[in-house]
Amino acid sequence: MDMEELLEQLLEECRPYTQEGKVATYIPELAKGNREDLGIYVLRSDGRHYQAGDYKKRFTIQSVVKPILLLQALMDNGKDFVRARVGVEATGKPFDAINVTDQTLLSEHINPMVNMGAIAMCTLIKGKNGEERFQRLLELTRALAGDPEIALDEAVYLSEKRTGNKNRALGFLLKTYGMIEDDDVEEVLDCYFKACSISVNSKNLANIGYVLASRGKRPQTEERIFPSAYAHYVNAILATCGMYDGSGDFAVKVGVPAKSGVGGGIMAVVPTRMGIGIFGPALDGKGNSVAGIRLLEQLSQQMYLSIF
Amino acid sequence: MDMEELLEQLLEECRPYTQEGKVATYIPELAKGNREDLGIYVLRSDGRHYQAGDYKKRFTIQSVVKPILLLQALMDNGKDFVRARVGVEATGKPFDAINVTDQTLLSEHINPMVNMGAIAMCTLIKGKNGEERFQRLLELTRALAGDPEIALDEAVYLSEKRTGNKNRALGFLLKTYGMIEDDDVEEVLDCYFKACSISVNSKNLANIGYVLASRGKRPQTEERIFPSAYAHYVNAILATCGMYDGSGDFAVKVGVPAKSGVGGGIMAVVPTRMGIGIFGPALDGKGNSVAGIRLLEQLSQQMYLSIF
Amino acid sequence: MDMEELLEQLLEECRPYTQEGKVATYIPELAKGNREDLGIYVLRSDGRHYQAGDYKKRFTIQSVVKPILLLQALMDNGKDFVRARVGVEATGKPFDAINVTDQTLLSEHINPMVNMGAIAMCTLIKGKNGEERFQRLLELTRALAGDPEIALDEAVYLSEKRTGNKNRALGFLLKTYGMIEDDDVEEVLDCYFKACSISVNSKNLANIGYVLASRGKRPQTEERIFPSAYAHYVNAILATCGMYDGSGDFAVKVGVPAKSGVGGGIMAVVPTRMGIGIFGPALDGKGNSVAGIRLLEQLSQQMYLSIF
Amino acid sequence: MDMEELLEQLLEECRPYTQEGKVATYIPELAKGNREDLGIYVLRSDGRHYQAGDYKKRFTIQSVVKPILLLQALMDNGKDFVRARVGVEATGKPFDAINVTDQTLLSEHINPMVNMGAIAMCTLIKGKNGEERFQRLLELTRALAGDPEIALDEAVYLSEKRTGNKNRALGFLLKTYGMIEDDDVEEVLDCYFKACSISVNSKNLANIGYVLASRGKRPQTEERIFPSAYAHYVNAILATCGMYDGSGDFAVKVGVPAKSGVGGGIMAVVPTRMGIGIFGPALDGKGNSVAGIRLLEQLSQQMYLSIF
Repeated sequence: MDMEELLEQLLEECRPYTQEGKVATYIPELAKGNREDLGIYVLRSDGRHYQAGDYKKRFTIQSVVKPILLLQALMDNGKDFVRARVGVEATGKPFDAINVTDQTLLSEHINPMVNMGAIAMCTLIKGKNGEERFQRLLELTRALAGDPEIALDEAVYLSEKRTGNKNRALGFLLKTYGMIEDDDVEEVLDCYFKACSISVNSKNLANIGYVLASRGKRPQTEERIFPSAYAHYVNAILATCGMYDGSGDFAVKVGVPAKSGVGGGIMAVVPTRMGIGIFGPALDGKGNSVAGIRLLEQLSQQMYLSIF
Repeated sequence: MDMEELLEQLLEECRPYTQEGKVATYIPELAKGNREDLGIYVLRSDGRHYQAGDYKKRFTIQSVVKPILLLQALMDNGKDFVRARVGVEATGKPFDAINVTDQTLLSEHINPMVNMGAIAMCTLIKGKNGEERFQRLLELTRALAGDPEIALDEAVYLSEKRTGNKNRALGFLLKTYGMIEDDDVEEVLDCYFKACSISVNSKNLANIGYVLASRGKRPQTEERIFPSAYAHYVNAILATCGMYDGSGDFAVKVGVPAKSGVGGGIMAVVPTRMGIGIFGPALDGKGNSVAGIRLLEQLSQQMYLSIF
Repeated sequence: MDMEELLEQLLEECRPYTQEGKVATYIPELAKGNREDLGIYVLRSDGRHYQAGDYKKRFTIQSVVKPILLLQALMDNGKDFVRARVGVEATGKPFDAINVTDQTLLSEHINPMVNMGAIAMCTLIKGKNGEERFQRLLELTRALAGDPEIALDEAVYLSEKRTGNKNRALGFLLKTYGMIEDDDVEEVLDCYFKACSISVNSKNLANIGYVLASRGKRPQTEERIFPSAYAHYVNAILATCGMYDGSGDFAVKVGVPAKSGVGGGIMAVVPTRMGIGIFGPALDGKGNSVAGIRLLEQLSQQMYLSIF
Repeated sequence: MDMEELLEQLLEECRPYTQEGKVATYIPELAKGNREDLGIYVLRSDGRHYQAGDYKKRFTIQSVVKPILLLQALMDNGKDFVRARVGVEATGKPFDAINVTDQTLLSEHINPMVNMGAIAMCTLIKGKNGEERFQRLLELTRALAGDPEIALDEAVYLSEKRTGNKNRALGFLLKTYGMIEDDDVEEVLDCYFKACSISVNSKNLANIGYVLASRGKRPQTEERIFPSAYAHYVNAILATCGMYDGSGDFAVKVGVPAKSGVGGGIMAVVPTRMGIGIFGPALDGKGNSVAGIRLLEQLSQQMYLSIF
């Protein structure tokens, strides 16, 4: 069976699992998502690509932007600077947890893959103001995806901004503990809300995942976008913390670095071999695409993808 | 020895303990406080009053306003309404703790004597806007203290507002969990920052404490300001949670309902017998006046004040 | 209406609330309790006593022994020694919480009214071994209750011992952090399990409460059993932490020091005025007698019992 | 430069870092360790092996036994059975944390790489009693290491047993929450204490790591000891949680599955390429060999070991 047939077959096997999940509803724009949707796009290191299902549908990137935020912060400041400001340990807590109660919040307590750390990362991106920072991040996203038409979903952004009080609380905590220095909290959050609202499709995520898989090189041209050390840094964090508090389970079952978002996207990185983009907005209780994880699990077993 | 002599003597015995504490420094205005200051004012139910030391000095009320916020909320809404919105259990955590990590924040998790609960209380005070709410609270404070000249310390208020990022985080968490409904978070915080910045002296606190001790009646005229049930409500919470996470120790050593603030004030309530106001800005690690607690401990032993 | 009629009337009004609770079932002996039972015994400082309902029924003392353990520890070691070894702050957590995760457990983190602190107290009672310690505690209980026939419920004790793995865990944690020094953990636990299994009735609890209310004096003979300072110590802790994590609610609604146990007992202390014993084995979610609390709430309102 | 020279050179470069760490002292036997020791043994898939420094010295396996416990549990029960009983998410907490306070402890809350999960694993190993279970584990360890002379360090075992009160507390908590069913807690702990006290050297760890790297096959003979799926399972957990709460840092810096122990050992798994054994008893604050991590970091950079 060739790869295209395999994807079609696995997708049909996995689509019923969409019934086990729920579309995110915390903002009205996400609630409009179609629960049955499921799509996959695979880009291989031999330059070939394969796809199935709803791979053309657009959705907001949400937390899948976190590794891109981290990449931009690394490219702007280097590893040591970033590492000193945002920790890398799994927090063992939900993505929006307030990781502080009785003790001083330290950089070691935050992680780029949970909201607090991702907001902190927005302050590490170079730029005169929030808007300039976001534009640079958007440019990087376009470059990684090889798609200059990637744009902000204005409606989602405005909705995130209007309802994002928990993220606002996280922002003021970062400010309290000196992790947002000169910047205005609301401006940092604005960059974060925009970052989460970038509109992408499965192909875009597969392309971004490919660059991480090839440790910094663009498909085909092999042009280097960032040093391989940054890919190791990002991929390591994706492997340990990329799938919220289902990261351990995903490592056992699928075994590759990946990042999910509540928009239904999953970007998976198979080092040296392929980038994979998934879209499946029906989420499990941890915020991961139910059918998307099943699809990756099947694919991993069929193609021996686990790096472990 | 008469009461006046007793106060003088105890005050001199306790003043050295001011050396064990530190003046609050989180805003510049508080840091200007004089560590050696110590004053006491006692108002008895027989109408007599006694004082010693720096009892005339003014300071900001800070957390001692919390029972007044609670009283105003009770007077505006009744016990059941307030009880349903703000819990009454000791949290076992510092006054500014973020009492939420992995779980939904419920009204049962907050307490009127910690910041989060006190901020929630600001939304329960009737008024068209934050300013009107604060004015009503200020009027109640003046009425309780029998001092129409009590006013806002503008410099402290502005400083609190500028630096209050942790309280801002708490406000946005309350908003996230539906505990600030229609109101704008920043406006609610504005009322809270102003409430904490009311300028008082020991005599004022003794008068306020007296009204709570007499379960709602003004000194001398015996005019009732609020129903006795509200005094029981407030005094019970003061006894269990009034002295931050030193409340248990204070109950054992002194044995009366009391509330302290980082401005150095302590308001103590000796039911049916007296109201006591203390000023001593040198604070222990929990935010309570070091020498003030010593003074109350001595006074309690000498005059058998413990209600337990 | 005289006192006897009042008790009868309140008891009938409150009995239906037994339907809202559940009898404890963690050991078979407790599960045999009769959910509808409700009894009260009041002993007043004028020497008169009043009772209603199932006041003669026997039940195991369970956590109501905690203040007696604390008293024995105080009588054997004095306030300073005990205070240095077991803290007095409310933990804000359930009675059997494991108040330690990432940090070193300190004496300040435990409380005599939660299991960990009560187990620690067993090591502070003088005696060559666990059995001798328990015998001294039993003697004190008999003396306080004025009832030499109070005895151990052997079946409950054996059941507690067999199933008490969480308490065993707490005991080994105390050992880990140096709070059980020379003693064998299992022997300390044995004393604790026996202490919880003392069989009492409402009259016993009322008598014990009376001695605490009179700050150490026996009814009628006025003979002093312990110094008044120990009564203040115990009563203060009962007021702040006696009713599990419903202590704040109880302070607001009833307003007197009290201790409840999962056997259905409540011992209430009305300083200078009375001791009250309640039996009502239908418990609320926090482990307190549902109807018992209602009964005390009504009685407190009718007789102005609140000390706050 | 050939591999042997490289190891010698890196070892000399890294040895000074031993000064930054401390030998474990919680039991006297470990405290006797020599802080300056540092050794490495590398076994490659081409059958060649290289070594440097104190690679022959013996030490107790301590937590490096955890992946072997997990393997034995998997071999005895299959993936689904084990997965249903012991979770796989990072806890974000120290290795000996008590991952329970206010909530019911569930299998999802424990992890095979922290003590509580490892103790739970002991009950999943088949055997009539604790001793038989331990013997089977010891046999597996010998088989993995290809060294039939691996044995228990009796002195360390007795010391662990005598002082292991925190582990005892963890055991009783597991019993409380139904995770140790029929077994006697002390017997389960006995198996655990023995497991931690197996005496090994760097060569042993390299051989064990090799079998995991080759997904279940013995060096040279290529004989399969366990299915590849179990290797993926174990390696995934090592990658996410193998280095205590320094696992994220290790993933970023070194990038291979590994497990450390407070005896100073590290077993590293470079999938398809090599097994590495390290000995360096000077530990950092998280319990990992300071110089050992440095050595692996250098080796990873020189030989491009990172799988991410």
